Amino acid sequence: MPIIALITDFGEKDWFSGEMKGVINGISPEATVIDITHRIAPGDIRSACFTLLACYRSFPPGTIFCSVVDPGVGSPRKAIAASNDRFCFVGPDNGVLSWALSKEKIKEVTLITNSTCYRQPVSPTFQGRDIFAPVSAHLARGLPLNKLGPSFTDFIKIPFPDSTYVNGDITGEIIYIDSFGNLITSIENEKITPEHHNSSMKILRTDAKIPFGRYYQEYKPGCKLFYTGSAGFVEIAVNGGKASEVLKVTPGDRVQITAPDPI
Amino acid sequence: MPIIALITDFGEKDWFSGEMKGVINGISPEATVIDITHRIAPGDIRSACFTLLACYRSFPPGTIFCSVVDPGVGSPRKAIAASNDRFCFVGPDNGVLSWALSKEKIKEVTLITNSTCYRQPVSPTFQGRDIFAPVSAHLARGLPLNKLGPSFTDFIKIPFPDSTYVNGDITGEIIYIDSFGNLITSIENEKITPEHHNSSMKILRTDAKIPFGRYYQEYKPGCKLFYTGSAGFVEIAVNGGKASEVLKVTPGDRVQITAPDPI
Amino acid sequence: MPIIALITDFGEKDWFSGEMKGVINGISPEATVIDITHRIAPGDIRSACFTLLACYRSFPPGTIFCSVVDPGVGSPRKAIAASNDRFCFVGPDNGVLSWALSKEKIKEVTLITNSTCYRQPVSPTFQGRDIFAPVSAHLARGLPLNKLGPSFTDFIKIPFPDSTYVNGDITGEIIYIDSFGNLITSIENEKITPEHHNSSMKILRTDAKIPFGRYYQEYKPGCKLFYTGSAGFVEIAVNGGKASEVLKVTPGDRVQITAPDPI
Repeated sequence: MPIIALITDFGEKDWFSGEMKGVINGISPEATVIDITHRIAPGDIRSACFTLLACYRSFPPGTIFCSVVDPGVGSPRKAIAASNDRFCFVGPDNGVLSWALSKEKIKEVTLITNSTCYRQPVSPTFQGRDIFAPVSAHLARGLPLNKLGPSFTDFIKIPFPDSTYVNGDITGEIIYIDSFGNLITSIENEKITPEHHNSSMKILRTDAKIPFGRYYQEYKPGCKLFYTGSAGFVEIAVNGGKASEVLKVTPGDRVQITAPDPI
Repeated sequence: MPIIALITDFGEKDWFSGEMKGVINGISPEATVIDITHRIAPGDIRSACFTLLACYRSFPPGTIFCSVVDPGVGSPRKAIAASNDRFCFVGPDNGVLSWALSKEKIKEVTLITNSTCYRQPVSPTFQGRDIFAPVSAHLARGLPLNKLGPSFTDFIKIPFPDSTYVNGDITGEIIYIDSFGNLITSIENEKITPEHHNSSMKILRTDAKIPFGRYYQEYKPGCKLFYTGSAGFVEIAVNGGKASEVLKVTPGDRVQITAPDPI
Repeated sequence: MPIIALITDFGEKDWFSGEMKGVINGISPEATVIDITHRIAPGDIRSACFTLLACYRSFPPGTIFCSVVDPGVGSPRKAIAASNDRFCFVGPDNGVLSWALSKEKIKEVTLITNSTCYRQPVSPTFQGRDIFAPVSAHLARGLPLNKLGPSFTDFIKIPFPDSTYVNGDITGEIIYIDSFGNLITSIENEKITPEHHNSSMKILRTDAKIPFGRYYQEYKPGCKLFYTGSAGFVEIAVNGGKASEVLKVTPGDRVQITAPDPI
């Protein structure tokens, strides 16, 4: 039976994620539920979108990702599901799935409108429990996606802050700060060539200059480095410290890897 | 195999909930353990009691709820288990199960006294691991409840802060504040009639007046609303904000839904 | 199928522990993954080492403990696995496993060098996902330990802060503070004889004197007590309060149980 992997902003203090799992288990007792995180900041669709993008490829084929960061819950916002031959994605149509859908080249989704798949009555404020959990569980049991509703192409896509490459300079932005204080940028690892290992990264607002490294302890404690990160994007860290605090940056801050000096 | 659903105040920093799961798995490897929460404030029996009441009905029949918020651990306080044809409840006899037991019309429980079901030796300070986890696991394997000990009717019941209905005014209190800052009141959703949709809710101490809504984004960001909540009780929220901070209320504060004006 | 029990400092905000579980499930879908904790302070090897020691014996035989507190990730630090007829341990060679290995009298470990067991490509900053999770999953599927690499005896051992026994005085130190604020000392429960029940414990730096108790509520709210703790070591608590705040101690502070007065 497949995995149902959860991303929400429900936190861990209340019963919300546990109650979703109760609903899932009642429909699909064989499914394995994995918590990706319930600690997305309330309503932070962009961080949830990046979280899914950062990790979904490590899950086995057949995994159903259920992402419920849904400040528009109960409003006329749509609910969608999508799949290809590898993965399935379920969530509100607010962009929260869009970077993963784009990476998977999924251009068509299914509107979730088949209320026979819902937990009844549907609460207008907890559709994680009443729509997204039961729909995910029905998919885990093998319900074909097209039984959920009509297909739909005009779903909401959040523009990814693409990095630009001009004269060897690569410019991007801080896109996510993890709990170690590491700064994940929008620059894909593949953009970094061996020549860049001798160049430095700048945070444009503060003008901090940061050398390349391969791992944290390559530098002394307290030293900054940039490196190709585990989620597929270039990151900035401070060995043994929190880059977010040392460098005082926030998501959206622009970064630039300067072209290597010509020899 | 059934679910064992856990509610504790053990937090997530230490090994306590994980160790309980190790004990459960050693006795009942097929049981599915679901964390409802381990983030009850230390010793906050009342919040744990509400947490169980709020979510237990979403779990499939046969679920065993194990609630360990137990400031009297090791003292002569009793341990109890109870069940009906749908659910089973296990915990200390300090009221932590009482609102769910009352809702399920369970009037008789079983004292847990059969030490052959315990992990030995029993620590006087971690009976979640040594009594409640193994007892829950034995129940999951099919042990009949009456093998645990004698029946008992004089278990501790926490009075539910009932709402009152006078001349169309409904009065209740804030009973739980969730991590979104939403205020859950003791007024059951069923008390709200369509007429109340045109009336307003008052927080008596602060005199704040709050209109009815169906979902958060029905109002502009920062606006307050009251609505029928997903746990079965009327709630107060601020769209995109934290009602608990905006309204500066605490559990126990009285609220009143005023009677609709006669036409 | 065995349990894989996780200890990390990855926190719960990000996708790191969830992604490890995705990798594990892809290799060993039948394994049961249990979170011991992901809330070790970043890089706090000593707390992770104690956490494992404190709880591993409550898990069923065959459990694979995977502890990833690894500030040297990506550096030439080694990765190790070890087992006896009861348990298996996997982690970086930085001492994080050492107190459990010592307790289990394991003197020889296996270096993890067989890259066919890794997730490829191996990130130099997330080997929890790319080495420790897949290696644990392969062990759960029955891979013999000696397929991972050569045996190795010179692994890093953190000295345990042994308690001393002089003229009936037992001296030790605070080794861990749990989320209730209880102070766990390095004095094993077995060192306490019935005579010590009439003696008191001193925190040497502050000179606080604390009486023996069996359980928290044996004393009035706010009172201090020392007692034989659930993890196998003597602890200090404040009934209904936080001993760590009341007594203002930190790990490493010396404690002493004075010899009982001669009669």
